[in-house]
Amino acid sequence: MIRVKEEKVREMAVSSVREEFIKKAKLKVQDAISSPDLLLIHTVSAIDELNRVSNLLFERLVEWYGVYFPEFKTNDPAKFVQGVLVIDRENLDQKEIEMAFGQQAQSIIQKAKSSIGAKLSQEDLKQIRQLAAQLQLLWKLRDEIEKYQEALANKICPNMAYVAGPSLAAKLVAQAGGLKRLVLLPSSTIQVLGAEKALFKHLKTGSKPPKHGLIFQHPLISKSPRKLRGKLARALAAKIAIACKADAITGNFIAEKLKAKLDAQMKRILQKE
Amino acid sequence: MIRVKEEKVREMAVSSVREEFIKKAKLKVQDAISSPDLLLIHTVSAIDELNRVSNLLFERLVEWYGVYFPEFKTNDPAKFVQGVLVIDRENLDQKEIEMAFGQQAQSIIQKAKSSIGAKLSQEDLKQIRQLAAQLQLLWKLRDEIEKYQEALANKICPNMAYVAGPSLAAKLVAQAGGLKRLVLLPSSTIQVLGAEKALFKHLKTGSKPPKHGLIFQHPLISKSPRKLRGKLARALAAKIAIACKADAITGNFIAEKLKAKLDAQMKRILQKE
Repeated sequence: MIRVKEEKVREMAVSSVREEFIKKAKLKVQDAISSPDLLLIHTVSAIDELNRVSNLLFERLVEWYGVYFPEFKTNDPAKFVQGVLVIDRENLDQKEIEMAFGQQAQSIIQKAKSSIGAKLSQEDLKQIRQLAAQLQLLWKLRDEIEKYQEALANKICPNMAYVAGPSLAAKLVAQAGGLKRLVLLPSSTIQVLGAEKALFKHLKTGSKPPKHGLIFQHPLISKSPRKLRGKLARALAAKIAIACKADAITGNFIAEKLKAKLDAQMKRILQKE
Repeated sequence: MIRVKEEKVREMAVSSVREEFIKKAKLKVQDAISSPDLLLIHTVSAIDELNRVSNLLFERLVEWYGVYFPEFKTNDPAKFVQGVLVIDRENLDQKEIEMAFGQQAQSIIQKAKSSIGAKLSQEDLKQIRQLAAQLQLLWKLRDEIEKYQEALANKICPNMAYVAGPSLAAKLVAQAGGLKRLVLLPSSTIQVLGAEKALFKHLKTGSKPPKHGLIFQHPLISKSPRKLRGKLARALAAKIAIACKADAITGNFIAEKLKAKLDAQMKRILQKE
């Protein structure tokens, strides 16, 4: 009797220990997938995907609309979509077209009148316009997610967001695979993060090493003379490497000082030229 | 004086002839781009693109939502999107979930309660839900363009639409580059239209020739036993080749007879088995 009882007690103990461990493991997994920079990474992919997707659909729209009004062209996709929604070649609404296109309106109306495009039924046009309206919604969604990303970056990595801009900060976190991983990278790696292809080509074939990866998107670099970009990128990467450590470890906001130093440094580089 | 006049008259005559020719050329171009099968071709590409695009965004949604409720899975993308819109793990609305998922509702609620997903703010969730709502709009647009395509196919190529189904008819016209080009193709080419890769591989390397291209999508072929598909495809392609000639040249509606013959033929093939 006593032996049987003992075994049962031991079994119960083992199973409750097992449950305890499962609970702990669950919590750890939850912690891992709850890390807020994961959300930031998802916004980066979502914005990328929305851009790719709206480009694809825009190309489709341009071709389709070309059946109706092949002479209509603008450099601005948003304007093009507006034109698709507003221009009715059978029944040109001068006011609406002027509202949308200002000075260009007259030349568009002229072109519409003499267009060699096909005559489409209202039903045909309706389909093309629905695609155009869909594009506007996709752009709007992308803009909203961009705003959300900005708020998220300012919360999760305020120092980096201040120094590099929220969008670039988000992309760097995504490229590194998380804020904690970004912290482990030396400034020289941050400088070429996102230019892995060029970097490994350099290491393999001895071609020129890349001067910048994602951080090229920072206006201070992309708008500066080509031969200064390497130096500017190095300076920026160094400050980002400090900023991300403040974000991930100490939590202090030191970005204003960092930014002031960076600006002074960049001025010096640009003046030496 | 007289000579000058003559020259002027000649010049005027030349320029008016030139204008006349430009007018004629314009009309011809207009004819070419007004051909109604062009619209049909555009619907095929638009539907293709919308499918590709919504698949991309759906994958993105699944990954993003996985941060919040990784245990949630369904085979039906529309159901998944509905789940994203309806399930709030902090505040489970039993009725709404039951309305959306019927018998599955209980197991979903159970999973939601014990989920190891991250706790998200309403703002975080809102972004994910906006993406889900966008997907619903994209699917709706695709369905509407499919309906429009069906109506268009029934108008432009009623015989083909009757024999092969409107969607397949539209795809064949698109693949051939227009109804007039499809008419020029022999039945054996129509049979493998859309399987060019396999066909040229066959011609180059002597691998097995393809038994069917696009017409594989016809349920009579795709749902039949594999070893009969070649014969069925040949029979279907032969009738399509006749139907498209009736559509493009005579304009008579002979599809009912064609379909009856085809059905009898297909029955014979299936019975011989």
